Amino acid sequence: MIKGGHSDDARLSLRVDFDDETRLGPGKIRLLELVGETGSISAAGRAMGMSYRRAWLLIDTLNAYFRRPVVAAQHGGKRGGGATLTDFGADVVKRYRRMEEAAARALRPDLQALAAERPFRPRARRN
Amino acid sequence: MIKGGHSDDARLSLRVDFDDETRLGPGKIRLLELVGETGSISAAGRAMGMSYRRAWLLIDTLNAYFRRPVVAAQHGGKRGGGATLTDFGADVVKRYRRMEEAAARALRPDLQALAAERPFRPRARRN
Repeated sequence: MIKGGHSDDARLSLRVDFDDETRLGPGKIRLLELVGETGSISAAGRAMGMSYRRAWLLIDTLNAYFRRPVVAAQHGGKRGGGATLTDFGADVVKRYRRMEEAAARALRPDLQALAAERPFRPRARRN
Repeated sequence: MIKGGHSDDARLSLRVDFDDETRLGPGKIRLLELVGETGSISAAGRAMGMSYRRAWLLIDTLNAYFRRPVVAAQHGGKRGGGATLTDFGADVVKRYRRMEEAAARALRPDLQALAAERPFRPRARRN
């Protein structure tokens, strides 16, 4: 069974490398998702174990990836104000997750073949 | 046009995460490919800018990923002897590259849509 990017024993992640080696991968997408969920760059970063500064720099970088920003932030004092995904940012996240699922579905036999070669395969619990 | 994992302006890389968070991605696959091409773990590592020690440890890790080894190495003195991909190792590399191409083909409209949102798109030269 496939759930999200999961095959039974292997999960697929995608990384998109643009021509100039700008990368969009699971870490940046997760950060964006968390900004959408928490409404805060610092809370999103914290949830991923990164400093506010690092989270902010990543969001800044991401906001320059495309013609349109992905996050709208209210600058406010040292700890920053609230932040939301723009409609475009939400689209990018949604598209990435859709791509991940489509790839996992298309590559399911390969993922299973690789997983079948693994030495230990305790059945993972499914919740 | 798609060449390997390439769409016109974006390239797709895959990472396979097994249940226990063992990862197989573009870096490890490239290292294996280079071992196959150079016949040497140290030369393969050097080509990727890593120390012999780091390259060796990665190959050691990779050899424990699956039931069968991916690299056969002749240990010989401090600098190590020659190394070759096993048939299984060559299969893993081939399968990964095939997966990458299949995913890039399936996701081409998405890759192009993301690339179309990029601010600067100088035409890359095609050789």
